[in-house]
Amino acid sequence: MTEQPGAAAQGPLRAAVLGTGAWGTTFAMVLADAGCDVAMWGRSPEVCDQITTAHRNSRNLAGIELPATISASTDAAAVLEGRELVAIAVPSQSARTTLAGLRDAWPAGATAVSLMKGVELGTDERMSQVIAESLGIPEDHVVVVSGPNLAREIAEHQPTATVVAGTDPERVARVAVACSNPYFRPYTNTDVVGVELCGAVKNVIAIAVGIAQGRGFGLNTTATIITRGLVEITRLGRALGAEAETFGGLAGLGDLMATCASPLSRNHTLGRHIGQGLDLREATAATGGTAEGVKSATSVLELAARHGVEMPITAAVVGVLHEGLPVADMATMLLARPKKAERT
Amino acid sequence: MTEQPGAAAQGPLRAAVLGTGAWGTTFAMVLADAGCDVAMWGRSPEVCDQITTAHRNSRNLAGIELPATISASTDAAAVLEGRELVAIAVPSQSARTTLAGLRDAWPAGATAVSLMKGVELGTDERMSQVIAESLGIPEDHVVVVSGPNLAREIAEHQPTATVVAGTDPERVARVAVACSNPYFRPYTNTDVVGVELCGAVKNVIAIAVGIAQGRGFGLNTTATIITRGLVEITRLGRALGAEAETFGGLAGLGDLMATCASPLSRNHTLGRHIGQGLDLREATAATGGTAEGVKSATSVLELAARHGVEMPITAAVVGVLHEGLPVADMATMLLARPKKAERT
Repeated sequence: MTEQPGAAAQGPLRAAVLGTGAWGTTFAMVLADAGCDVAMWGRSPEVCDQITTAHRNSRNLAGIELPATISASTDAAAVLEGRELVAIAVPSQSARTTLAGLRDAWPAGATAVSLMKGVELGTDERMSQVIAESLGIPEDHVVVVSGPNLAREIAEHQPTATVVAGTDPERVARVAVACSNPYFRPYTNTDVVGVELCGAVKNVIAIAVGIAQGRGFGLNTTATIITRGLVEITRLGRALGAEAETFGGLAGLGDLMATCASPLSRNHTLGRHIGQGLDLREATAATGGTAEGVKSATSVLELAARHGVEMPITAAVVGVLHEGLPVADMATMLLARPKKAERT
Repeated sequence: MTEQPGAAAQGPLRAAVLGTGAWGTTFAMVLADAGCDVAMWGRSPEVCDQITTAHRNSRNLAGIELPATISASTDAAAVLEGRELVAIAVPSQSARTTLAGLRDAWPAGATAVSLMKGVELGTDERMSQVIAESLGIPEDHVVVVSGPNLAREIAEHQPTATVVAGTDPERVARVAVACSNPYFRPYTNTDVVGVELCGAVKNVIAIAVGIAQGRGFGLNTTATIITRGLVEITRLGRALGAEAETFGGLAGLGDLMATCASPLSRNHTLGRHIGQGLDLREATAATGGTAEGVKSATSVLELAARHGVEMPITAAVVGVLHEGLPVADMATMLLARPKKAERT
């Protein structure tokens, strides 16, 4: 591995972003505002052209002016050449195929930064595993960025913190420096499994919160579901070798709170429709697409069962979504458990 | 200590509530709906009369119908006689004087349930300590109830969970049974110091969240302040002998989230006024009274300094409220710290 200087030394760090969605575009802006030289790759010539020449991405991040130094192109090889850091924000479920196509152009030794969440259907692999396998790079070349990071607010330069997690401390530190700017503050973490698990399970809890709010329940109920939801996610994480503190941090609690409060969260919106009495098919139609948590709820519950972990909120969500549990029984089901010590 | 049967055995458990404010009245309802025989004590003959005869408390809990079995009186000796459990919800800063006046009427061996939050000015004592000293009872006769418990929502029978904490497991279990009903679910905990510290420090964090929202910042910033605020409260708690898990539980995170989301929270409201550019005097006037967190912020920071604990959010709040730190510099101050590992 050759020495890769940070942004401060020997000119700007050369970074790339794969994907021109809202989060990819926003993260490109974060990198540029931290002093990096940033090139983006996308599939749409129109979007790429607009980013390069008009400094806008009106399709995915309307109303935001991008740094003029960001260029974008559909030519992956040209974008990737000589980049030390490559952030990846392409759709999770097709990431394996997309990245396999970029394998030959991948710059040797570069750090891959995963901006993606969820687990791959079929393999149950985390995104960092999918990235390493499909690009043919070691897992410690992959660094994960996750936190309470609603793209639009960051694009408006609102103060935001995030977690940068990886197993190679030098790469983690380099990514932290590369994305640190006056409105974006990274904290480092070594617990990749915990950070990625948080990102996958939070959507299930967001559905539960949405259901409760759809039923008309207020702040006590929301706070209770988030708090107890975090306890059950943490329990599962521990069983899988993650560290408990990750779940109480920005990638766990922080992301969960931002997701549950956002009117733009698809999982939260789907939950509200369910709480208001729609069935899953109707709620999916009203939400305008499939919510990630609908798929992962069942996998998470199976995973928990295999490890002997009790997850009553996840079980209630699965019950309501997939097993005909009346939504009116969900609150009762959650509250009617025997009086227990808080941490068990 | 004589055997004190739970609500299920030998007739209803005889309980009293001191104080006819919103939370005292709501907790009386919780106890009555859990099957207890409940008498309330208050200073206002009109309020007591209305509770007993009209089953309402229109001054403090407008629009809510109370269980018809609840009686209220200004005669403390009559209310307290023969009660096994006495919940206390009188103003914190005058609790010592109020309770000293009830010492002779206190039923021998009864469990005191603290519904109060904050620390006593001058002594820096927690409410359970104030209760034990002023009534002349052992500290393990005091049990603390705290959680994401906005009174109005509980009074509307929204599903809510809470923490019941104490050092005598039998008394804790008895209180948990006494207040458990279809809409109110207690979890037990032995960490009284942690639970009471959460209740005191959360108001400081609620001010910080209010300031950020008053400046127009959104969900990422709110989630970040709450998450990092919880990390610094936990750090202080550990230094004082509390258990870290309490802070991630219902009395910590749960109560903090409900408080920070509530438009009725005085601390949160005061913070918003400050964020919008008012000074402390103007903001206090606009809030309609002193917010608890304004007093405790300085004490908390002093306490932290004595134990060598870093609390950057609390320090920023003290800076803005009391030391002329421009509110515009607060976000920068919080984000400009050097890149650190998340858990330190």
